[in-house]
Amino acid sequence: MNTFLSPLHRPNSRLSLVGAGPGDPDLITLKAIKALQKADVILYDALVNPVLLEYASPQAELIFVGKRSGQPSMKQEAINQLIVEKAIEKGHVLRLKGGDPIVFARATEEIQAAETRGIPVEIIPGISSALSLAALQNVPLTSRGLSRGFWVMTATTEEEKLAQDIHLGLQSSSTLVILMGMRKLAQIQRLFLKAGKKDIPVMIIQNGSRENEQKVLAPMEEIVQKVNAYQLGAPALIIIGEVVKLHPEYGQDEIYLETIKH
Amino acid sequence: MNTFLSPLHRPNSRLSLVGAGPGDPDLITLKAIKALQKADVILYDALVNPVLLEYASPQAELIFVGKRSGQPSMKQEAINQLIVEKAIEKGHVLRLKGGDPIVFARATEEIQAAETRGIPVEIIPGISSALSLAALQNVPLTSRGLSRGFWVMTATTEEEKLAQDIHLGLQSSSTLVILMGMRKLAQIQRLFLKAGKKDIPVMIIQNGSRENEQKVLAPMEEIVQKVNAYQLGAPALIIIGEVVKLHPEYGQDEIYLETIKH
Repeated sequence: MNTFLSPLHRPNSRLSLVGAGPGDPDLITLKAIKALQKADVILYDALVNPVLLEYASPQAELIFVGKRSGQPSMKQEAINQLIVEKAIEKGHVLRLKGGDPIVFARATEEIQAAETRGIPVEIIPGISSALSLAALQNVPLTSRGLSRGFWVMTATTEEEKLAQDIHLGLQSSSTLVILMGMRKLAQIQRLFLKAGKKDIPVMIIQNGSRENEQKVLAPMEEIVQKVNAYQLGAPALIIIGEVVKLHPEYGQDEIYLETIKH
Repeated sequence: MNTFLSPLHRPNSRLSLVGAGPGDPDLITLKAIKALQKADVILYDALVNPVLLEYASPQAELIFVGKRSGQPSMKQEAINQLIVEKAIEKGHVLRLKGGDPIVFARATEEIQAAETRGIPVEIIPGISSALSLAALQNVPLTSRGLSRGFWVMTATTEEEKLAQDIHLGLQSSSTLVILMGMRKLAQIQRLFLKAGKKDIPVMIIQNGSRENEQKVLAPMEEIVQKVNAYQLGAPALIIIGEVVKLHPEYGQDEIYLETIKH
């Protein structure tokens, strides 16, 4: 059976994987807005600002596929299935994801599900939280003399172990941006201290670019203590590197911390 | 002298560092467009699509600070100076840069020049070429089982040497995105071959997302030969990693290459 010529397809059947940006609804691209206005079906995540759904046409079908409190999120296989079904039934499916759809967003699975059914796919990049949360704090990830690159990685493997790449990262001069790392923070700290990098600056941002944003700035040797004092939790972004010193508040929050501790 | 209270400042004196995205004028954020509409002075680079300047108010002063063919670009120190002068004289200065203003874009120098004169700074992130050029080819930089992260780096140090981080990068499972690397490509290839990574897939994109875009896809052991056959030159983006195999044309261009060679 040649699925590429399925008579069930609509002439405009296709999938757009679209980045919604880090939270601020103005940090979406014009290309994404134009796609939202045209889509027949929009599948959106919990990380997407719901205000963005107002761009959708009144005829569009909006389907939430993220995590709701107390309920598990839809399984990836079910989302893949839904993309294919809706593209065949209704035409243009738009998959709206927080941040950038190519950064830890299961894009490959959704692209392959569509393409094996002959549904064309386009990616509309978004502003990645991994890059923009530092920028919104006026911290560039690269800076002459401080950092010649940046490395975005997850801290935890599928087997819940600390990712091997962190061992390489701590030898480099690049800024490290670590996702899904809060539960491994003490372990990461031990690695850096063992490598003699107790002074390397660290910034941790929780709920970045949102109203309830919280952050902690400290040298590596103090970071775990401070995270506990400020009661930061997962999910949060961990940024490690000399560029963090460029933050205007770096080294300025000692008095506040003392107040909390006593 | 307290420069923070200089009587010469306008009440709205400030600097916005704004990302213009990779080339496609629709890959700019709504926040950037709103800032372009309000700015009193816009300083723009050669990498910025000139169509974007149509968002500027008719009263705005537009100043080109990039490289023109045959002429050197304005020195960074002169740009810093211009930012400060224009912010004091006219108010809101918008510095429009290709891609994302925090990725290899001398943001720190411009932030510090403004802040030491008491001029407030905001960063409006853009879609980075380093991330989006792969996305626009339907290649995610991260993908389960293939890559647990991505590392954006320059190949060349200020002393024209190969950056040390490439030695670490070739040991990692992350996708490598290398800027300013074309003149070091043969050297990079030798390093990977020596490490036994002759089969690792490579994608090189020149003039990404523009009309004259050119790309080459090949395993590491063939990449230099192919770049020469297709006559790709600098500046170009080098992407190294298993995710490149996800490109629909990977391994499909042998016939075309044969035609060129004979």
